[in-house]
Order: sequence, then C-alpha cells, then structure tokens
Amino acid sequence: MTQLPAQPTPATPLLDQVTYPDDLKKIDDRDLPQLATELRAEMIDAVSRTGGHLGAGLGVVELTIAIHKVFNTPHDRLIFDVGHQCYPHKILTGRRDRIRTLRQENGLSGFTRRAESKYDPFGAAHSSTSISAGLGMAVASQLSGEPRNVIAVIGDGALSAGMAYEALNNAGALDARLIVILNDNDMSIAPPTGAMSAYLARLASGRTYMGFRDLGKKLTAYLGKKVDRAITRAVEHARGYVTGGTLFEEMGFYHIGPIDGHSFDHLLPVLRNVRDNSKGPVLIHVVTQKGKGYPPAEAAADKYHGVNTFDIITGAQAKAKPNAPAYTSVFAEALTQEADFDDKIVAITAAMPSGTGLDKFSLAHPSRTFDVGIAEQHAVTFAAGLASEGYKPFAALYSTFLQRGYDQVVHDVAIQGLPVRFPIDRAGLVGADGPTHAGSFDTTYLAALPGFVVMAAADEAELKHMVRTAAAYDEGPISFRYPRGEGVGVEMPERGQILEIGKGRVMKQGTKVALLSFGTRLAECLAAAEDLDAAGLSTTVADARFAKPLDHDLIRQLARHHEVLITIEEGSVGGFGSHVLQFLAHEGLLDSGLKVRPMVLPDIWMEQAKPEVMYAKAGLDRAGIVSTVFKTLGQKQTISSGVAG
Amino acid sequence: MTQLPAQPTPATPLLDQVTYPDDLKKIDDRDLPQLATELRAEMIDAVSRTGGHLGAGLGVVELTIAIHKVFNTPHDRLIFDVGHQCYPHKILTGRRDRIRTLRQENGLSGFTRRAESKYDPFGAAHSSTSISAGLGMAVASQLSGEPRNVIAVIGDGALSAGMAYEALNNAGALDARLIVILNDNDMSIAPPTGAMSAYLARLASGRTYMGFRDLGKKLTAYLGKKVDRAITRAVEHARGYVTGGTLFEEMGFYHIGPIDGHSFDHLLPVLRNVRDNSKGPVLIHVVTQKGKGYPPAEAAADKYHGVNTFDIITGAQAKAKPNAPAYTSVFAEALTQEADFDDKIVAITAAMPSGTGLDKFSLAHPSRTFDVGIAEQHAVTFAAGLASEGYKPFAALYSTFLQRGYDQVVHDVAIQGLPVRFPIDRAGLVGADGPTHAGSFDTTYLAALPGFVVMAAADEAELKHMVRTAAAYDEGPISFRYPRGEGVGVEMPERGQILEIGKGRVMKQGTKVALLSFGTRLAECLAAAEDLDAAGLSTTVADARFAKPLDHDLIRQLARHHEVLITIEEGSVGGFGSHVLQFLAHEGLLDSGLKVRPMVLPDIWMEQAKPEVMYAKAGLDRAGIVSTVFKTLGQKQTISSGVAG
Repeated sequence: MTQLPAQPTPATPLLDQVTYPDDLKKIDDRDLPQLATELRAEMIDAVSRTGGHLGAGLGVVELTIAIHKVFNTPHDRLIFDVGHQCYPHKILTGRRDRIRTLRQENGLSGFTRRAESKYDPFGAAHSSTSISAGLGMAVASQLSGEPRNVIAVIGDGALSAGMAYEALNNAGALDARLIVILNDNDMSIAPPTGAMSAYLARLASGRTYMGFRDLGKKLTAYLGKKVDRAITRAVEHARGYVTGGTLFEEMGFYHIGPIDGHSFDHLLPVLRNVRDNSKGPVLIHVVTQKGKGYPPAEAAADKYHGVNTFDIITGAQAKAKPNAPAYTSVFAEALTQEADFDDKIVAITAAMPSGTGLDKFSLAHPSRTFDVGIAEQHAVTFAAGLASEGYKPFAALYSTFLQRGYDQVVHDVAIQGLPVRFPIDRAGLVGADGPTHAGSFDTTYLAALPGFVVMAAADEAELKHMVRTAAAYDEGPISFRYPRGEGVGVEMPERGQILEIGKGRVMKQGTKVALLSFGTRLAECLAAAEDLDAAGLSTTVADARFAKPLDHDLIRQLARHHEVLITIEEGSVGGFGSHVLQFLAHEGLLDSGLKVRPMVLPDIWMEQAKPEVMYAKAGLDRAGIVSTVFKTLGQKQTISSGVAG
Repeated sequence: MTQLPAQPTPATPLLDQVTYPDDLKKIDDRDLPQLATELRAEMIDAVSRTGGHLGAGLGVVELTIAIHKVFNTPHDRLIFDVGHQCYPHKILTGRRDRIRTLRQENGLSGFTRRAESKYDPFGAAHSSTSISAGLGMAVASQLSGEPRNVIAVIGDGALSAGMAYEALNNAGALDARLIVILNDNDMSIAPPTGAMSAYLARLASGRTYMGFRDLGKKLTAYLGKKVDRAITRAVEHARGYVTGGTLFEEMGFYHIGPIDGHSFDHLLPVLRNVRDNSKGPVLIHVVTQKGKGYPPAEAAADKYHGVNTFDIITGAQAKAKPNAPAYTSVFAEALTQEADFDDKIVAITAAMPSGTGLDKFSLAHPSRTFDVGIAEQHAVTFAAGLASEGYKPFAALYSTFLQRGYDQVVHDVAIQGLPVRFPIDRAGLVGADGPTHAGSFDTTYLAALPGFVVMAAADEAELKHMVRTAAAYDEGPISFRYPRGEGVGVEMPERGQILEIGKGRVMKQGTKVALLSFGTRLAECLAAAEDLDAAGLSTTVADARFAKPLDHDLIRQLARHHEVLITIEEGSVGGFGSHVLQFLAHEGLLDSGLKVRPMVLPDIWMEQAKPEVMYAKAGLDRAGIVSTVFKTLGQKQTISSGVAG
C-alpha cells in the first residue's frame, strides 16, 4: 500500500474540553456548531489515517452532538442502527484517544460494541436491528419501573428491511416509550431502491420539508429565547397541517418532521420536547447529507461510504497495487459473460450492487439486474419465483447476510428444489469488519439441506468455472462461495468450464499425508505440502470443490492410501469437514485407524485484524497445517514452515 | 383415538360437474353461490374425516371459485400464502378424488405443492412468501414477453411479517403487473397483533367498508346487467373518496376495497376489472370470515384453525387419550412456575401463543408475555434488547420458524453473548405437516455458533429441568429443543433441577456398544439396548443433554471403553453427531479403530406420515439402531428388534 504523507492533526480547542457527554452539557448551545466543525475535522483526520466508514459519520455529527447534549446517556440508551455512523459518537464517549485505532487489530471496532463501552448499549453492524433492540429496552424500562429514554437512530435505507417494519408494527401496538430517529440521507450504501424510499423522498421534498424549515427559521428569528415552545408549536402545526396521516402514524407512531439534521436550531428543541413530553412511540424524521462538511465526500457519497486511508486535501485514497483481480470482479465479469450467452440469467442484489459486483453486471444487462433493497428474505424468494418460471436467478449475497434469508433458502428454494444460484461473497474471515461480517457458517447451514449443491472456489479461475457451472446446472439449488479480496494470480481462462457436479481434483499426489481443501486455503495447503515433502512426509493435496455432493471416490482414495487425512475450510464445524467425517464413518473408513483431522475456524468470535493475521491465529495457514500434521503423527516438527519451497 | 360414526357424503350435483377450472367456466355466475355451498359441504366432510386446516379454507370458498372463474389458471399463476387455505382450490383443480387423503401418508399435502399439481405454481407452508414469489413470476412474465396474470392471496396476519413488507416495497418500485389479494379475516391462527392489524381494522370498519358495500348493492339493483362497468366506477369512486391515500398506495399499489369476500357480486366484477384493466401492482382488500358457513367454526375460529377428525353435526373433535403430558404443556407450565419465582423472566411468541403454550403462561403473567406477530426476526432481537437490560427472555419458536430469525440469533444474540433463552418446539419430524414444518436443522445451525449452549430434552422431566437450567443460566445464549406431541410418561418432578452445563448422564452401563443420544430418541436407544444385550452385545446408553458444550469426559469414556459408538439425534448432519466426531478426531480417539456411526436424519425431505412411521423410515428407531450396530460390527443380526424386553 502506498504511504501517504504525514498530515498535521487539526486544532480542536472546544472538542478538547469534551471527553464524555457530561462535558458536553457544559457547552453553550450557541457553541455547538463550532464543536461540530471540530468533531468533523477530528473524524476526517482519524479516518484518513485508518480508513473506514466516512460519509455516514459525517452526516450525523450534529445529530450525535444534539442527542448527547439533550439526553442523559448512558442511562438513556442510544442505539445506532448498522453502527458505521458511530465514529463521532465514539469520539464523544471517552474513546477519542483510541479513535486512530479504528478497525485495526486490537483497536476500536468500526461499529458500536457492548464490550467496548457502556455508551454502546447494543452492538450493531448488520442493518435494521435498532428498533427491535430499542423496543426491548423500552419494554424493560416499563417493566422495571426505571424510567429512561431509548433512542434508535436508523437510516432510510435500513427501513427497506422487513425487520424494521416488524419492529415498527410491534412498537406501534405496544405503545412503549421509544424514540426512533429516522436519519434520512437518501443514500444508504448505494442509491436506495423501493417504494419506501420514494415515499420518504415525497415527504422530505417540496413544501413539507421546506415549509417547516422556513417556518422554523422565521420563528427562531422572531421569538429569540422562546424558541423551544414556539418550535414545539410549529412542529405540532406542521405535522397536522402538512403531512396528514403519514405511514408512520398509521403504524401507531407520533411523527415529527422532516427537520434539518444539520441545524441545532431544529434538533435541540425537537429532541428536548420529545424528551420532556412524549409518551408512546415517536418517530423523528431528520434529513441529513451523507459526507456533510467534507467536499470530496459530499461530491461522491457512495465512494466515501467505506474508504481506504486518504489524503485530506485532495480526497485521494491510497490504493494498494493489486496482485490479481478481486474475486468480486471475477464473479461479476464471469456472470456478465454467461448472461451474454443465456438470456435466462438474471441477477439479484440486496442493496449491495457495488459490494457484489452487480453494478458492473447491470451495465451490460440493466433489465436483468434487480436491486431489491436491504431485503434478503424477499431477495431469496423473489429469486425462487423467477426460477419457478424457468429463469436462472443468481442471488448474490454476502455469506453473513444470506443468514437473513435462511428460512427462505430452506422453505422456498431447497424444499421445492428450485434452481436458484447463490454466489456467496465474503466467505470466511473478512478482516477489518470483524466478527459481525465474517462468513463462517454458510457451508454448515447450506450443506445440511437435502438436494443442495454446495461449492467453494479455490482460486479466481475456479470461481469463473463455478459461475458457468451454476449457470448450466438446472436441477436444483446451487451455491458457490469465495472470499473478500484478491485472487491468487492464476492464469484465467477465456470462459469458465462446466465442472462435473460432485467431483474434486487432485493437485498433487503423495503417499502418507492427504490434505483435502475446500475453498481458498488450497494455496496454503500446497505451500504446506512443500514443507511436509521436504520433511519426508509425502503429501497429497486435493481440492474438493464440492461440500455437497461429496466426491466419494476421491475421499475413499485419500482415506485408503494415506495415514493422515486433513480437511481444511474457511468455515465453522458442521460444514465440509463434518460431511467428510460423516461419510467416512458410515463407510467404515474410520474403523481401521485412519488419522483424520478436520481443520475449521476456531470456536470463538474472531476479532478484527488483517485476514492473513486472522487465519494465522485460526491455525488455517501453511504453518498451522504443517504443525497439525506433525502433531497428528506424534512427531517432533523437524522443519519450520515456509523454509522449504 | 376414538372412532367417529360414519357420516354420509353430502350431495353435490353442481360440484360434480367441476373437475378442473375449465369446467367452472361453463357454470353461470348466478349458480356460483350454490357451487360454493356444495364446495363448502365437500370440504367440511373431507376434513371431518382427515383432520386438518378447516377455518381458513371455509373463509375463501367464494374467493377461490371467483379467481378460478375469472382467471385462466394454470397459465395465470395463483399463489396461496401459507397454503393452509388451499383445500377448496385442490378440490377445484383435479384433486377432489384424493381430498380425503389430505395430510395422510402418500396422500395430498395439506399445503400447496409444486410437485402435486401444475395448479400449484409455488408451494407454501410458512407465512408471507407469496408476494415475493409472485413478484418473481410477474417479472419473469415481463422479461419473457409472455403475458400472464399473477395473483397472490395473502392473509392479514401474514402482513405482519417483514418479508411481506419487503416484497410490497419492491413491487411498488418495480411496477410489475402483480395482483395481491389481501384476505382480511382479522384472524390468522391467533387473534392478530400489531399496528398493521389495527390499521386494517380501521380500513375495514365503519363507513369505508359499509359505504362501498351499500353502494355496490344499490348499483347492482339499479343497473342490472351493466353491473361490471358500474361497479368499476363505484370502485374508483369509493377508492378516491373514502380511503384516500392508504398505506398500500403509499407503497406504490393501486388499492381497491375493502370488498365483501363472500359476495360474488363484489368479487367477480372487481376481479374482471383488474384482469382486464390493471397495469402495475394492485392490492384488492377482501374481507372474509374464517370458518364461514360452518357454525361450530364460525363460533370458534381459533379452535378450528387446525382440527382433528370431528363430528359434522356437533362439531365435536375426536380426542386421542393422552398417555403423557404434551411437551408444549410441560414447557408452558414449567416456565410459568419459574416465572413465579423470578420476575425477570419474560416470554415472547411470534403469533403462536397456543402452539407454543404461551397462552397458558400469559394467564399467569400477562404483562410478561409478548406476542409480536408473525415476526421472527424482530422477536429474536426484541428478546436481545430485553436481555441487554437484565431480563430473561424466553423466545419460544418452532424449530422451523427459528430459521426466519437466524441472522438475528447470530448477530444480535450470539456475537454479543446475550442470555436469550430459546425454547425450540417441534424439533425433529412433525408428522402430517410434512417437510416444510420439520425441525431438522436447529442443532446444526445453532451449535456452530461460538458461546451458544445447545440442549435437547430426552423426555418431559428433562424438559422441565432444562427450563429451569435456562432460567438460571445467565452467561450467554442457551437453547433447548423438544418435539411435537406427548412425552414418554416419566415421573415428573415438582420443580425442575438446574443441570450442570455440558454434562450428560449415563442411563445404563455396558461394555461393548455405546449409544449416545441427544434428544427424545433416548427411549428408542434404551429399547434397542435391551435387544442388543439379549443378543450378547453389552450396551451402554447415555443421554448427552448438551450438543454444546459437549461432555468431553463422557465422550472420552464411551470412546475408550467400547468397540462401537453410535450417536443418535433427530436432526441433520452437521449437528450433535458432527460435533462429537470433530472432538473425537482432534483428541485422536478415532485413530485406534473405534467404530463410530453418527445416526442423523436422512438427507432427503421426508414426506408426511405419522411421526413414528417417519422415524422408522429414517432408521432412527429401535430397529434401526439395532441393525446399525450389527452392520457396524459386521455381524449377522441374530435377533429381531423388539422381541427382547
């Protein structure tokens, strides 16, 4: 990665007086805009050094300050939905001294996290959970008789997820005292889709929003100190007059707004009024701008959603020189190519067109690309509907987000045997995003399903083959997983080949030790085999390609002709290795002393670090494989891993 | 089960002329009420003999006839949400001759099913999938240029699920030609909850509904033959005038209704108008009465949701004499008892108060019972919010429905280590409801999660212990699974004991064969051990109690001192047996010739039958265990299972 020049840390005299929200209480309302400026500068500086989520945090600087100014955190509970907008919050809640460790090994999490601070009452990272969690807290407060405010800050994009609706629906019925702040920046990660976002745009545009804004300004100018009560009345008025019965009111919420989320003159009186007077569920509709206050981010909010380290002056991000194409790109290009040949291929993303590469696909095949919003449940069954009509849907989701559609995978796809294709990105450990984004469980929860074909790509050429294989396979559901990041630099075929279902491949034949890899640990297996061969332990390396159906012939051959059989995968127990063991056990192949060791991810939530560091800790690298073999054989390790070859 | 007296089959002269929807086209509109009467009688007679879902089907008799009369099924796609209201549909689509085999082994499914008929374009059983599937079909029709109508019939209760909202949101944005019929009977399985149901009640009550109803009647009387166009105009009028901008219109749907779902004068013109004139997504709000036309069902719609065989005259249901209390009741009573001692215990159901037994709990602890609607995602994270505040939430879900909340279990509960308790009902095979309701995967997808405690009850006393254990355990998430149906009749303790976490128990000590059970197969293991002992194969039987953490000492002891180790569970590969194998492998306990056989559910979607028949087919009964042991030992089986003992 290219090193950026050292940048001076910005001067922040007012922010320097604030370590905790209590300090914020001492600052005059009139000085808050200055504090916001300093907080923004501090945050930009920190993220320019660490990389991370920039635009989302910049959009909520004033909102975060206003909430901590008005409410009594941590006694009052403040929950940030998704949590990637929490950097200003972290700076204001005792974590400024560590803010330049964001997303680094042993550093602050890039999300809210209960274990990190009592000011993070509920951790997040996946979208749309905050209203449910907040409602639980509000009900707890009701039951215990200990009054407290519960505030959930949720973006408009997150409202496309059914979970948020389930929670609104329940909150409206329970009538608990919950404050939902809808942070409407009309931009989640990608431009938002869905009827809800169009609805919010209607609410926030035209005379509704501007009318109240102007009204507020005029009242503030006119009434001076009496702003609070006047604004309160203005809000009441604007609410009744302009918005009528909004969707949120139909759901049982008292609805305030839209108000200007960058204006303390709007935020403070509204929040104080809600704090002092609200009873049931309240929704405050706040309009903000993602990336606010940093011109490069304002100009390109999508690109500044997640950023690398960057130069503050120019906004130019440091770019690592790629050694090989990224898996995501390989997938997108391969699918685009297959779709050129087959007009039944369609692609579905749940609000991640860029993350999944489908933005590229959509350039070539716009009418066959569907972004359904943050709605994984719907994405899967929508794909099943398309498959039932003879289309070939590729529902491209991250491993961790496919968990959201698990019942739909079981009930709508697998039980019906519908040929939905599941490209599973971000399989295995993902680095800086930490445990909430790890793709650890997909092989376990998919390979358990009868009739499912479950593949993992060992390298980028294999991924290309699997895209074509999935396109060609029409007998039932099929998935293929691949990791975040770059491929290994293998030669790429012009077009993928159709792989035989349930057949692996032997990469290298040996006699004593067999390494059977499922996924991109194959390269580590090949490296480990060099070490083992050098130590006199003749090693076979095979790529299983399929966790289901298993290559029975291959496994039998490995089991019968080797003393040790090691399986390796970037996933939890219950997945590929467990299926291999189940087969071996019932075939009687374990009965005569084969030494089998299934290597899987360790049974802990692995903390953020660089992926290669995480895999080393997990023991799933060259050295870990070598040492497992020596340990299995009961031999003293005679060679350092990595020395040979 | 008590045998009911034989009942004469009702006379159905008009229905006898209808085998397929094409036959329906020949019947005059004026004769449809008579057809509805006959169809209702036929359905009541069939269900009185088979048991099954009665109220839901009775509520949609006219609607089903009207749809098949107006639309060109199966070219037009008709999707029933959940599918338990499909019996009239099955009778009208070539399956009347088998309607008295509903839910029986080798009989018709109790739900829609693609494999059963081309008139079932999308199978169902879980709620709220129809709009997503229908949207996929509508988009396919658009892409292929082959015009067809797609009709999704969804109940008001199903609208509380986020998935339905995700689909509405996407449909409103895509503007595809999709017809959603909201079947509003104000009663899903239990009385509905949530703000949405209150909203629908407002829409359907008072002048809105009656106004249009009266208008329609008057227009029909006045205009005679010109009813279609007049009603069309009336619908337009009523829509604009009375309902204003409804929630569905805000979501991008053209909204018609509410109309009377039992009146062909309402249904036919509206459906014809929509068929001939609609372009984008349309929602037709139809009001029906669950159980319509059968007084005992009308009087008690909840009880007639799912029924046993019954006497048509009296409505009295046959009752099997219970041998032991049902697991669901034991759970409810044990939890009620624990909640008497501990006011932090709260209970959550997702629209299944009766199915989970929480209706009983709520009688004792109404303020600590939360029915969140059909909203499993929210249920789990709502529970996590309560747990974060020191409450002890029991989120009681069926195994198959917990799949809906899987990501929330991972992300909101497990990663944060929050002590949410998961009572998992309907674990394992469930009988007449078939593969869509089987609880096969929970151990696999939960035991993969770091920090989770995963238990299974071997009998009803164990369930009572596990309720208390879960109440006492505050270190992190904990689950316990138990099956549908009755316990085994063991003596019940006054109160449950707190089990030691991660400790199993030896039921019977032997020397050659070890049977290690997880769950209610324990009784079959004990019976099998009698057979094996009688055949000279001295058998140990142990109850693991925990799939996670495993009882390492117990497993070591079993592995070291037996020639054969069999694990048995009512779940898929990847679960308990896989965790045992993983442990054995890494301990080196497989290296010296232990014959291990993990017995799990077979890798197929098992068809409906009585549970004991299904388990026999799965090989997970006494005979299956005995034969597995003999096969493992390579011995000829010397004794018929069940003969000894």
